Amino acid sequence: MNAGFIGLGIMGAPMAANLLKAGFPLAVYNRTPSRCGPLQALGAVACETPAEVARRSDVVVTIVSETRDVEAVLFGPDGAAEGLRPGSVVIDMSTISPAATVEFAARLRAQGVDMLDAPVSGGESGAIEGRLSIMAGGPREAFDRCLPLFEAMGRKIVHTGGNGNGQRTKLVNQVVGSLNLLAVVEGVRMARAAGLDPNVTLEAVGGGAAGSWMWSNLGPKIFAGDFAPGFSIRLHQKDLRLAKESLEELGLDAPGTALLHRLFTEALDRGLGEQGNQGLFNLWS
Amino acid sequence: MNAGFIGLGIMGAPMAANLLKAGFPLAVYNRTPSRCGPLQALGAVACETPAEVARRSDVVVTIVSETRDVEAVLFGPDGAAEGLRPGSVVIDMSTISPAATVEFAARLRAQGVDMLDAPVSGGESGAIEGRLSIMAGGPREAFDRCLPLFEAMGRKIVHTGGNGNGQRTKLVNQVVGSLNLLAVVEGVRMARAAGLDPNVTLEAVGGGAAGSWMWSNLGPKIFAGDFAPGFSIRLHQKDLRLAKESLEELGLDAPGTALLHRLFTEALDRGLGEQGNQGLFNLWS
Repeated sequence: MNAGFIGLGIMGAPMAANLLKAGFPLAVYNRTPSRCGPLQALGAVACETPAEVARRSDVVVTIVSETRDVEAVLFGPDGAAEGLRPGSVVIDMSTISPAATVEFAARLRAQGVDMLDAPVSGGESGAIEGRLSIMAGGPREAFDRCLPLFEAMGRKIVHTGGNGNGQRTKLVNQVVGSLNLLAVVEGVRMARAAGLDPNVTLEAVGGGAAGSWMWSNLGPKIFAGDFAPGFSIRLHQKDLRLAKESLEELGLDAPGTALLHRLFTEALDRGLGEQGNQGLFNLWS
Repeated sequence: MNAGFIGLGIMGAPMAANLLKAGFPLAVYNRTPSRCGPLQALGAVACETPAEVARRSDVVVTIVSETRDVEAVLFGPDGAAEGLRPGSVVIDMSTISPAATVEFAARLRAQGVDMLDAPVSGGESGAIEGRLSIMAGGPREAFDRCLPLFEAMGRKIVHTGGNGNGQRTKLVNQVVGSLNLLAVVEGVRMARAAGLDPNVTLEAVGGGAAGSWMWSNLGPKIFAGDFAPGFSIRLHQKDLRLAKESLEELGLDAPGTALLHRLFTEALDRGLGEQGNQGLFNLWS
């Protein structure tokens, strides 16, 4: 199976590397071409357009920042749609609007191409170690066919239903994860102000009913003053905007998510956008 | 080592049972005497007052609801202090005010008795299975001496520093756990409104960066409409009040914890106090 990969950011680059390591021939494209170099060294073919990636591939993976970026790499000038053959599959692993996803899938279906929306969770470390959680929506048959690729990138791989359900599940994931992150931020602020020992606190709180991935992975970084991204405040704010829009469409009042959207927007306004999302802590420092 | 146990609630009863199963001779007291029966069947001696428990014990464990309840069973009429011998130890495993804890420890010290504040996390299931997280503050020597008792009740046992630090660590734990719980509530509401499959969503979200004890343990209960306590809304609201007071004393603005305190107070006002804390979900149903 020839694979293509579009979008070599913090998440995409290690995910593409894992496809190469698993033995998939890989064509890659990135808006900033220099990011292709390390993957070429692993055997990837660098392409000049998404269309060229698509011409070389049975399955094309996209993972870019925003809904409009997915639209551009699929349907823009020299977009993947120009090179896709009937019977091929597009797997969009970005986190974008569920409604737009459903529309993109219909446009691809009209040219005989299946789409899977398959956003991920697990952060940069999960991407590097091939331990991502992958939430896929779309035709079951296409999901089954693409499973070997998913297994090269993730550990918890779930088919969530039709197109859009992958993105809907991911937004649930972001609502939950965002509040878990605020939990870490307020807990660490309180522990520090109370003069508690960081390592003892990390161990004690991580071991009971307050334990979480966020506490175990981002708690130590905040205590250590490490605000490098993993997952940036800018992208996290974008996900919370999508979640807020989705909650509004569903008619739900969700005060926790609304608070998180306000806090991340404030962090963006204060110039913290390129910090890791644990930099939410710096709103109060 | 003769042990005593005061307070046989949802948490206390299985914790006392685990001390008996580990071979400690145990004297027990509960305000409602009928709760002593199952422990007598396991070999415990039921006492009529906390003072009588103390007279029979080298180490007295207390786990009751509120700061004033701890004060009553220790220092009230027929309280444990009347029966404690110099060299014995009081372990208070309730979640109460750190400042009051420091004061109680000083009063006990004046009669030659060490105190450990050792609140727990891990819920009813953790208490039953002896898998609690225990956050102990107080003299290191007393902690070391009591370790065999702790090991009969918990798995993650941490010495957090001097008296009060156990309670301070527990309040950090409650801040973190409360926000993780709101995360579950908003995530489940969103998933249900979006028509996502409960089991698929539980699996997908639990496997990545949004995973938490709360998601894994209370998420399935909420999806199933099971609002039985574990840990009640009434007690959770009390912990959030303590956390809020502590944050104010520390001069910290913590909007997430403030929101949770408002929501749990509203749940209490609406008569949900005896539901499990996952009943926070019912504020919107």
